[in-house]
Amino acid sequence: MLTAKSGIKTLEKGSVVTPDGFQAAGMHTGVKRKRNDLGMIYCDVPASAAALYTQNVIQAAPLKVTKKSIAEEGKLQAVIVNSGNANACTGKKGEEDAYTMRNAAAEELSLPEHRVAVSSTGIIGLDMLMDRILPNIKHLDLQMDQEAAAAFNQSILTTDAIKKSTCYQTVIDDVPVTIAGSAKGSGMIEPNMGTMLAFITTDAAIEPDMLQLALKDVTDQTFNCITVDGDTSTNDMVLTMASGKAGNASLTPAHKDWDVFVEMLQETCEDLAKMIARDGEGATKLIEVQVAGAADDEQAVQVAKTVVGSSLVKTAVYGADPNWGRIIAAIGRSGADVDAGTIDASVGPFQLLEHSQPLPFSETAASDYLMQDAITITVDLNVGDGFGKAWGCDLTYDYVRINASYRT
Amino acid sequence: MLTAKSGIKTLEKGSVVTPDGFQAAGMHTGVKRKRNDLGMIYCDVPASAAALYTQNVIQAAPLKVTKKSIAEEGKLQAVIVNSGNANACTGKKGEEDAYTMRNAAAEELSLPEHRVAVSSTGIIGLDMLMDRILPNIKHLDLQMDQEAAAAFNQSILTTDAIKKSTCYQTVIDDVPVTIAGSAKGSGMIEPNMGTMLAFITTDAAIEPDMLQLALKDVTDQTFNCITVDGDTSTNDMVLTMASGKAGNASLTPAHKDWDVFVEMLQETCEDLAKMIARDGEGATKLIEVQVAGAADDEQAVQVAKTVVGSSLVKTAVYGADPNWGRIIAAIGRSGADVDAGTIDASVGPFQLLEHSQPLPFSETAASDYLMQDAITITVDLNVGDGFGKAWGCDLTYDYVRINASYRT
Repeated sequence: MLTAKSGIKTLEKGSVVTPDGFQAAGMHTGVKRKRNDLGMIYCDVPASAAALYTQNVIQAAPLKVTKKSIAEEGKLQAVIVNSGNANACTGKKGEEDAYTMRNAAAEELSLPEHRVAVSSTGIIGLDMLMDRILPNIKHLDLQMDQEAAAAFNQSILTTDAIKKSTCYQTVIDDVPVTIAGSAKGSGMIEPNMGTMLAFITTDAAIEPDMLQLALKDVTDQTFNCITVDGDTSTNDMVLTMASGKAGNASLTPAHKDWDVFVEMLQETCEDLAKMIARDGEGATKLIEVQVAGAADDEQAVQVAKTVVGSSLVKTAVYGADPNWGRIIAAIGRSGADVDAGTIDASVGPFQLLEHSQPLPFSETAASDYLMQDAITITVDLNVGDGFGKAWGCDLTYDYVRINASYRT
Repeated sequence: MLTAKSGIKTLEKGSVVTPDGFQAAGMHTGVKRKRNDLGMIYCDVPASAAALYTQNVIQAAPLKVTKKSIAEEGKLQAVIVNSGNANACTGKKGEEDAYTMRNAAAEELSLPEHRVAVSSTGIIGLDMLMDRILPNIKHLDLQMDQEAAAAFNQSILTTDAIKKSTCYQTVIDDVPVTIAGSAKGSGMIEPNMGTMLAFITTDAAIEPDMLQLALKDVTDQTFNCITVDGDTSTNDMVLTMASGKAGNASLTPAHKDWDVFVEMLQETCEDLAKMIARDGEGATKLIEVQVAGAADDEQAVQVAKTVVGSSLVKTAVYGADPNWGRIIAAIGRSGADVDAGTIDASVGPFQLLEHSQPLPFSETAASDYLMQDAITITVDLNVGDGFGKAWGCDLTYDYVRINASYRT
């Protein structure tokens, strides 16, 4: 699929190892009972690195270590990730463990320690099972094939039901440039980086500061626009590594194809963000809320996030109930500038509200629409030109089941 | 029960008709299928009135009408309430209907129209069934007995599972002064007045502006500290009527017993707030979160609200899982000034965290504690002297069931 505008195409079978220079691995060590729990992405050259972290004041040990690694020279060659244990609220011991993981991986790969990042996800406050992780680092079987990428994808999951991966390619400076991403995230997801990890690889040539610039912009419109349950984790991280092996001229906003690169990064992140929202704990449906006519773009996103995060909207979508009352109530409490008399709202093709007044619509047809597995709610506030989107999921019995018994 | 400090006692069998001057009624008109859906509180003299309303920008028609009534002279003699239909987002017709309800009640009671307040709760966006409500106003059988108060209590409920009523008495200026309250609220409850109605009667002598002053203070520490699902309704109202028939000297902050009156009002509102939280849709447990050591009282409440409103904390409590990781994660994202290394947290008598580090505790005993129907979580941030409380409930399968099928 080519997007007409910029010649970006999806690589259906692409993964984090598709961009030139990257390998991956994933394995089971016993931190979790059955599924893979240790993974690695490796780049055969020092890659420009950019990262964003949770906005929670309580941050897990691996974040501290990764920040320190990147601060050194803005380059990474590997990230080691475990699931099953978040290594958060584990005090000095946890920090030592995160450094030990990093340094052991660096030694195994014959890299300077600061070229390795560390990431963890899972239960908070339990000591890391270092006796399972450490001896297994040398068994991580780095490969460039799809199986290795799939094994990595699997290794970063916790309560996720599906693997999350995407890949795009375009041509910049007459050479193919590829971006791919792999993510996890399912619960404790909230605007501003809930419990989610995303690892993005690209072979684009780009300096670390430029990569950070692009990543920040794109994250604000993608990962920061999803919510599952309003909770924000201690461990979230979006990490991007650019090998430069594509051979394009180094990307900056002055490059004629900067926008193409940013758009491709945005498509990558939006895909992963939507996959995370769709895979919200217990979710049966992806909900996209589009808000137009807000005072500005920021307020549009604020309204979209409030609607998609409302427990009452989420349960109504689960119950296939076109209950616009809950939509307008969420809009009204969003804190954005809203005129109580000018709100239009639709669920899919069914307009339910015009200027805040109910329109006649077929309840049965609208309910049928809501039984689909991807729902769009569109809102026009009619007060300005701001536009924004947010993504979430329905709230179901299974969300409760999963979270009432997470540790048992 | 007498509180040692101020001689305030609970009247176990008291209700909104216990304070001198008040009568109540409740009946079924057919707006709802079976249960009472129309109620009234009446005062035989013009009562000082004070009220607070939802902070949602979208406000239902009855709020507009009640504000107008009170603005006239600060006195009310009756409030007419229906459940089953919120009369919100019903446009001009809805506003006309609310005025028609008010005026019909005034005519029936031979009162000036502005002495009557109107309140509604239920589904948003449906036209009021005026043909059921209007002809029945004359059938409201105002009485001073407990049956009448119970019928009123019943008439204001929607998805509530329990009736909510409380009553306190003290002596001021050598005369008994009584305060009672009746409330509804179960879903769409959020700090800052979620979907809840509370009607408070007292025979204290107090001017409207002083009553408003006391009500505002007390509401900030009671009704504004509860959350069920983070949603805020279009219809919330706390309405207080003071008949003055107790015969005390008119209460102002200069009166020696002003604090006693405010404390009694606070106990009334706190009782009702906790009943609302405990009766959160699908809830099996009341959760109280107490936060000490915050930078100030406001931040303490902010942290308490964030913890008690966290879906992950709520599901953990439902699952009797002493998962302090979710508690500290919520604290970290609360926006309050927090030192990531100084947080203490306990669940009931079990201290789980000291200076943000896990303590050894009996998981079984803590889990047993969480199986009780009233849970206290205490937090000390150790950064200042601020203290605050908030109340909520667990998140259960039944919350989803109720809200996924509210209209069907």
